[in-house]
Amino acid sequence: MAKRRSLHYVTPQKLPLTGGADGQTRVNYDQIFDEAIDRLHTEGRYRVFIDIMRNKGAFPNARCFHGHNGPKPITVWCSNDYLAMGQHPKVIEAMENALHDVGAGSGGTRNIGGNTHLHVELEQELADLHGKDGALLFTSGYVSNDATLSTLAKLLPGCVIFSDELNHASMIAGIRNSGCEKRVFRHNDLEHLEELLSAEDEATPKLIAFESVYSMDGDVAPVHAICDLAEKYNALTYVDEVHAVGMYGKRGGGITERDEAADRIDIIEGTLGKAFGVMGGYIAADTRVIDCIRSYAPGFIFTTSLSPVLVAGVLAAVRHLKGSSEERDAQQAAAASLKAKMREAGLPVMDSTTHIVPLMVGDPVRAKKISDILLAEYGVYVQPINFPTVPRGTERLRFTPGPTHSEAMMDELVAALVEIWDRMDMELRKAA
Amino acid sequence: MAKRRSLHYVTPQKLPLTGGADGQTRVNYDQIFDEAIDRLHTEGRYRVFIDIMRNKGAFPNARCFHGHNGPKPITVWCSNDYLAMGQHPKVIEAMENALHDVGAGSGGTRNIGGNTHLHVELEQELADLHGKDGALLFTSGYVSNDATLSTLAKLLPGCVIFSDELNHASMIAGIRNSGCEKRVFRHNDLEHLEELLSAEDEATPKLIAFESVYSMDGDVAPVHAICDLAEKYNALTYVDEVHAVGMYGKRGGGITERDEAADRIDIIEGTLGKAFGVMGGYIAADTRVIDCIRSYAPGFIFTTSLSPVLVAGVLAAVRHLKGSSEERDAQQAAAASLKAKMREAGLPVMDSTTHIVPLMVGDPVRAKKISDILLAEYGVYVQPINFPTVPRGTERLRFTPGPTHSEAMMDELVAALVEIWDRMDMELRKAA
Ligand SMILES: Cc1ncc(COP(=O)(O)O)c(C=O)c1O
Ligand SMILES: Cc1ncc(COP(=O)(O)O)c(C=O)c1O
Repeated sequence: MAKRRSLHYVTPQKLPLTGGADGQTRVNYDQIFDEAIDRLHTEGRYRVFIDIMRNKGAFPNARCFHGHNGPKPITVWCSNDYLAMGQHPKVIEAMENALHDVGAGSGGTRNIGGNTHLHVELEQELADLHGKDGALLFTSGYVSNDATLSTLAKLLPGCVIFSDELNHASMIAGIRNSGCEKRVFRHNDLEHLEELLSAEDEATPKLIAFESVYSMDGDVAPVHAICDLAEKYNALTYVDEVHAVGMYGKRGGGITERDEAADRIDIIEGTLGKAFGVMGGYIAADTRVIDCIRSYAPGFIFTTSLSPVLVAGVLAAVRHLKGSSEERDAQQAAAASLKAKMREAGLPVMDSTTHIVPLMVGDPVRAKKISDILLAEYGVYVQPINFPTVPRGTERLRFTPGPTHSEAMMDELVAALVEIWDRMDMELRKAA
Repeated sequence: MAKRRSLHYVTPQKLPLTGGADGQTRVNYDQIFDEAIDRLHTEGRYRVFIDIMRNKGAFPNARCFHGHNGPKPITVWCSNDYLAMGQHPKVIEAMENALHDVGAGSGGTRNIGGNTHLHVELEQELADLHGKDGALLFTSGYVSNDATLSTLAKLLPGCVIFSDELNHASMIAGIRNSGCEKRVFRHNDLEHLEELLSAEDEATPKLIAFESVYSMDGDVAPVHAICDLAEKYNALTYVDEVHAVGMYGKRGGGITERDEAADRIDIIEGTLGKAFGVMGGYIAADTRVIDCIRSYAPGFIFTTSLSPVLVAGVLAAVRHLKGSSEERDAQQAAAASLKAKMREAGLPVMDSTTHIVPLMVGDPVRAKKISDILLAEYGVYVQPINFPTVPRGTERLRFTPGPTHSEAMMDELVAALVEIWDRMDMELRKAA
């Protein structure tokens, strides 16, 4: 089941070989690489990156450098700078100060020269955000998942990891890299999870890994029910709150704060690059777990630490969002409004209970076409989401309205979509 | 052989189990984690991060927050901001502009909203630096090694990787995560490498992975001779130039530029966090290889792209160092001077042919003690280098003099070291 999310590498039946000048048989590397690329073209999933530049202070407005003579104005609808904190004056000011006080980079790993006072402060702030004793910074959310999961499982001999089938690629990487046994449970399916848990020996170390908000569908995990199972079967719990931190809970502590479940979770993982608007990742947990990961994870130890400029920006963002619910409320209102407008227009908006607004297309070529028309004709930038990010046949457009998207922008967007749906002979389901 | 560098995880003979309240046997996770930490204490390799804050404009001067009442001034001798570019006015200005023009973070992955025009420009600049058709940015040098090596080897069915025994943890991770066969050759040993290459079938895809400058010893790989073998046995070549880019070659293209060997190397990997002073990593290669990694590497695809603020800073640093050799020359002069002063004082400075100045101690407890005294009594910050960063028994202090370290600072440092060597009854080898 998890397979539908994994990347398909090219595994030719026969290696391309050519005769060398010296009469030897030689592997033709160029041909292998060319075939790998051709396959993506054939499947319609070769990706072209849209070249954009945001305008600070004017987000979601931006400039697009793509296939035009000079930049052209666009509206961004697919940013994960969910609360526009990447443009917040407090964040910009903090980064500017750090740039002038400390400089551009940290100049070293956390252990060798790269541990600034700002890193220490941010870890304290994040530990506090989740009501944990400690926290640990990584260069990205991807690295925090990969490094933590692979190291945890290596520290627990014979560990079995129970992983939701829709878990993010970075969690899948960490689990695979740990080399331990994995059991994949059907998405948010408690019965299936219990079936798998109960099949293992009680003396086997166990870890349940899941996300709180699933970012491509916008649904939420039943955190308490998973914790009940974890307690019953004595499993550790690991939750990826990447699409929830900053956005849920009274202080932005995520779904585990909103549901008052943080103290039942062993390790909470988050990103600093989405709602907090900057870049980086972290885990929050018991000091003992933090100390183990800090001491044993190569992905934490052997890399230049986060730039102090980024750390300063995140500190400002986390502190601001601990005290202000304005951005969260505005985001929820924008998401509710866009969903309502789409539903009313008969557009196939998916069942999301969060700030994420996915619109089902169900075909990669069509999804790409709609996205291209939106950009070229309407100045609307929304990226099509294809395999392997989502299962084949569920290709979609994914909108992330936030506090800076106005009602007028939404009306324009919905009108554009209706026109394109029409033009492409796609069905609109009129509300009853 | 490579084992001496790998991390030792705790693998208890018996899992700690306790009786649960319900009479069941339960895994005692806390005890497992505690034992993992205890083991580090016992071996004297538990790491305490020194909490410092650099002063922009005054580097290598900094403030230390460690175990004092309030910050205290120190001189940093172990930074990998080798050329002090993290403090360069052009870099700071470029970052400030990006902060104001674009904002704090990119807000998305390269494919979904996070591809700014700055990213595209920097990739062109880095491709040009190495005389390659393309380049690809990653969130760190660690990730570039891990993601590229693991993906490359998966794209080449049955690939065997030939890896120098002193390769960095991030290359080891990438090779391990690829799941392919690995042959470890003795450090810079061409005969051993050839022996291993010749033992494989000619139809087997092969990749030789090595570093140009080895950062803990300061020696350099015989690049051309390795390329000769690669040609003879039709192997791809991958070189980590993390400790060389910006610092060697007329434009800072690294050892492969200095030795005019760049066109013989398939993939050149570098960091943006050391000589370029900021943060991030990259590879430069043929468009075809770049396109494959861009399209197939989860560690590239599924993560928020580098903050445009960092990208702007690096752009300025790379451009500056392409045109200016002043920093490189000053660094080489400083390193030569410090080595000479140490040698003259009879200190056991190791045989380095580069900007790195390692001082052998040979014992983890002593190395830590010397470092502690330097910080507490002399305001000199240099981190001891212990296992697993270097093999056990070769623990050392590693100095990285740069353009901003003055002769007076060096004299003070050497005098301090001599006093401590004396105090600790360690031998000084007086020059003949
Ligand atoms: C669920 C999830 N976890 C982790 C990540 C990685 O976080 P980051 O972008 O900080 O690397 C992402 C997306 O980028 C994600 O969607
Ligand atoms: C040889 C080598 N390669 C790669 C890295 C990782 O680079 P980065 O710090 O950018 O993650 C390092 C050190 O950090 C290194 O010493």
